[in-house]
Amino acid sequence: MLLIDKYRDEFAQFLKENITKTQPETLYDPIHYILNLGGKRIRPILTILSTDIFKGDYKKAMFAALAIEIFHNFSLVHDDIMDKALLRRGKATVHTKWNLNTGILSGDAMLILAYQYFERYEPHIFRELAIIFGKTALEVCEGQQYDLDFENRNEVSTEEYLKMIEYKTAVLVGAALQMGAVVAKTTQENKQIIYDFGVALGIAFQLQDDYLDTFGNAKTFGKKIGGDILENKKTLLYIKTFENSNPSQKEELASLYTTSCSVSEQEKIERTTTLFKSVQSDILLREEIENYTFKAFSFLEKLNISEEKKSILRQFGTDLMNRNV
Amino acid sequence: MLLIDKYRDEFAQFLKENITKTQPETLYDPIHYILNLGGKRIRPILTILSTDIFKGDYKKAMFAALAIEIFHNFSLVHDDIMDKALLRRGKATVHTKWNLNTGILSGDAMLILAYQYFERYEPHIFRELAIIFGKTALEVCEGQQYDLDFENRNEVSTEEYLKMIEYKTAVLVGAALQMGAVVAKTTQENKQIIYDFGVALGIAFQLQDDYLDTFGNAKTFGKKIGGDILENKKTLLYIKTFENSNPSQKEELASLYTTSCSVSEQEKIERTTTLFKSVQSDILLREEIENYTFKAFSFLEKLNISEEKKSILRQFGTDLMNRNV
Repeated sequence: MLLIDKYRDEFAQFLKENITKTQPETLYDPIHYILNLGGKRIRPILTILSTDIFKGDYKKAMFAALAIEIFHNFSLVHDDIMDKALLRRGKATVHTKWNLNTGILSGDAMLILAYQYFERYEPHIFRELAIIFGKTALEVCEGQQYDLDFENRNEVSTEEYLKMIEYKTAVLVGAALQMGAVVAKTTQENKQIIYDFGVALGIAFQLQDDYLDTFGNAKTFGKKIGGDILENKKTLLYIKTFENSNPSQKEELASLYTTSCSVSEQEKIERTTTLFKSVQSDILLREEIENYTFKAFSFLEKLNISEEKKSILRQFGTDLMNRNV
Repeated sequence: MLLIDKYRDEFAQFLKENITKTQPETLYDPIHYILNLGGKRIRPILTILSTDIFKGDYKKAMFAALAIEIFHNFSLVHDDIMDKALLRRGKATVHTKWNLNTGILSGDAMLILAYQYFERYEPHIFRELAIIFGKTALEVCEGQQYDLDFENRNEVSTEEYLKMIEYKTAVLVGAALQMGAVVAKTTQENKQIIYDFGVALGIAFQLQDDYLDTFGNAKTFGKKIGGDILENKKTLLYIKTFENSNPSQKEELASLYTTSCSVSEQEKIERTTTLFKSVQSDILLREEIENYTFKAFSFLEKLNISEEKKSILRQFGTDLMNRNV
């Protein structure tokens, strides 16, 4: 069995054994529900992997990994409310299956529960983990706010978009790895480098997600292709296309990206995708993904760990970038 | 100037100087707004007072006090969404002034900000404060969930109601005092007793709130009298009345406490209040308030502090109980 799969299995077991609160049911049932919808468990695996890589006992990373996974799921529950999403991983979202109040309150409880798992560590480690967590959690909120703000704006720059996904998605990947490094009690330098690696990887990961949302294969991607286009999301594909379009293309893109757009969903997706390709935004996006992946790998080179450990992280990063899921 | 007023002023100044984040505005403007709506600042004052009473430097309690106040305001913002409240302290609630998403996300950020203020303490104190905070915050969520659950139930027992207000309101009063004791580095016994004092006082405080909501003076109370009745809230007044009513009174109460009740608001309030009084629920409630106040004061007696310090806490408790605001 691959190391990653072993960690995923052990984490699944650990989660089951440590999320045990049940009363009031109306508060905790939704928490069990969302945590058991599955998902790739990328963030907790990175925490566990990081502890292992820095020569710590990976079992000690379990509570930090659990905190990260619960926080991630908190953000999904609240984001799904804000995005009015009906489905999450193919199942009803919490606020759809229950109601708005349950979505808000169960999310709040998850955020608090996440913090509580740091209590299992000794005071200095506890403090270090909680500080990383607080900073990261606040940035995730700020990232979500920028994302919401962009919906109401006509223009968003590449720089602004990259900052938004860094906050909303990438810093949590960095923090997941950094927490593993903290548990392993490695050097401050290693803690910083692994964080930087994670943030760059996280940006590449989100850009890959954007790419797959438009150019992925519906069968393997698991979500409807073109979702971002239908929601008029100002992803890098849109931003680059707008920047590189001639006036008539700009006009067409603008007319497609309105809520009052009168063409059918299928036609909207097709015409927008054609526009994206006509100015090679798909290629530009793939280049950005590669840039951030290489940037991540260049941080890895600076780490003071064995070549064997580096190759595990490199493989994990490569798999994430080559995924079609 | 009274000690309490001095603490209130210093805390107001401290809050102003330490809530400084502004970007993104759409996230932080609502946070500044709700924190500057005022309020009695009871909880942070208790934290500061507690540090002083246990011979600590009260200035060291400021960050813990701020965490408590921000958490309290977080809970107001999210509760107002769940209760569909339009007004808070006479002004528009956050989700009304902005929108639902802003209410959710600003609330989330406040919960995280609250935790961050504990970072200003040394590791052992930080850990102790964060543990109290986590336990309390989760109980507050559970209390809110019980409150929501009760809306959909036909019967709620006195015991269940008291547990609900203990979680939703009283444990935070206990925690506010206990955190002050932690900052002062007093004995474990003192920390426990001051917590128990706070919880009993908090229950008395909430029961007093329930009393004023029906029997208060509209001019001084600041809220519309009879709000709980209009919302069909199953407070102790309702529970006691239901328990002590004859069949025809029970029937009248049940017919008044429906969302489809056809009488005017004023008539509903008057008839319900008359029913409450006819079985002396107002007197029973005053007795409960006194019981919990006495219970709180009996904890005070056990504290190993000077008589002078005890009298400050006793006075604060007495003022809270005699308030008409």
